[in-house]
Amino acid sequence: MRFLDETPSSDGVREQLFTVGGVPGVLWTPKDAVGPRPLVLMGHGGGQHKKALAMAVRARRFVSDCGFAVVSVDVPNHGDRPRDEEYDRIATENQARVEAGEDLAPLIAGFQALVARQTVPEWRGVLDAVRRLPEVGTGPVGYWGVSLGCGLGVPFVAAEPRVQAAVLGLGGGSELAEEAARITVPVEFLVQWDDERVPRARSLALFDALGSTEKSLHANAGRHGELPSWELDSAVRFFARHLSA
Amino acid sequence: MRFLDETPSSDGVREQLFTVGGVPGVLWTPKDAVGPRPLVLMGHGGGQHKKALAMAVRARRFVSDCGFAVVSVDVPNHGDRPRDEEYDRIATENQARVEAGEDLAPLIAGFQALVARQTVPEWRGVLDAVRRLPEVGTGPVGYWGVSLGCGLGVPFVAAEPRVQAAVLGLGGGSELAEEAARITVPVEFLVQWDDERVPRARSLALFDALGSTEKSLHANAGRHGELPSWELDSAVRFFARHLSA
Repeated sequence: MRFLDETPSSDGVREQLFTVGGVPGVLWTPKDAVGPRPLVLMGHGGGQHKKALAMAVRARRFVSDCGFAVVSVDVPNHGDRPRDEEYDRIATENQARVEAGEDLAPLIAGFQALVARQTVPEWRGVLDAVRRLPEVGTGPVGYWGVSLGCGLGVPFVAAEPRVQAAVLGLGGGSELAEEAARITVPVEFLVQWDDERVPRARSLALFDALGSTEKSLHANAGRHGELPSWELDSAVRFFARHLSA
Repeated sequence: MRFLDETPSSDGVREQLFTVGGVPGVLWTPKDAVGPRPLVLMGHGGGQHKKALAMAVRARRFVSDCGFAVVSVDVPNHGDRPRDEEYDRIATENQARVEAGEDLAPLIAGFQALVARQTVPEWRGVLDAVRRLPEVGTGPVGYWGVSLGCGLGVPFVAAEPRVQAAVLGLGGGSELAEEAARITVPVEFLVQWDDERVPRARSLALFDALGSTEKSLHANAGRHGELPSWELDSAVRFFARHLSA
């Protein structure tokens, strides 16, 4: 793990850029953090990146309201990572298949499953590295990710026993059912009731498939990009409840 | 409106029994309440009554956390009301129809629609009476009701322009769709994902039918009677957001 740059702390939150195994990431911690604390790993949405505005706003809330550490890395083909020709080729091919009349949602699911084969081990490596820092330590881990962050997050949470609570959503599909069934930690699952990108039935099917005994679906009126602000308040409380001692 | 009895205030909450137009009710207010404040009317569940334990616990939270007034009355054939032979007869008849193979849910919906023809005007009269009290006044009104309290609450909220926010749920069905479409205030709608009494599709259809631009569905793992405690916290925040100045 190599630290690259640090943004001077405004508002008591320290923001450090790093790479680990060639993957660019960002770590947010309380300014004068000493000793171990819960850690939230966040997965960003498609076309976004590790410190897109909504990601940074959310991270700062988890840090300032709960005293947690928050980490996020660029997904392949996003942010500061180089173009990946293989992923580009598949995306172009999918685009053509949609134009020829195929359903978009299963194609996206297949693509995300492919990317997850790369991101699951990458993110596990990020956990290993970040949890070696004394101001993070080996406390409880949460995962937050919607849309692409859900498609990559379900396989990650299913594979990663260190994750003890997860916020997922804006994604769906029976393709993820098997991995979802292996998730047993508490989940808060976000659905936009008028989502123009994720068919409602696919969202509900994924929530239904989760193996967790404690799971809550929050569906709000609105389109894919219109997640209401009170869901961030709710996520703060959810992680505080499950990750704080 | 005639006051009958008052429970000595423990915990800063005053509890007064009353009748209005022959309907027995209970009013909770802050102990030394002076002047107008938001009012929440609560509808109880089937087989319960106006001050069943869960009702009283919920009312006390709305009073002590938000400073609101809370009112609840017995539904016909419940609590301190006399038996109603006509309702008894229909209930017995429905029981026989279920045993003969008919679906329970539409029968319940039809029954609740019949009872609502009586409770909507009763509850409107309760609002009139309670809002004349100086410690309640003519501030914003919220409605809370699940299960039977949803079946009776949807027609009430649809008919009552003084209601500005509602928590509904544990109920459903296309029978309520027309009245649900006339509801335009913010709604928090509760679903138990493993509800053994309300088929999931009926719950989702009712949420879908609500005309509100701001509506949130909270579905939690568990059976009809297993509403998790954090949904009361959520309802407190929901009403505080929409009814407090």
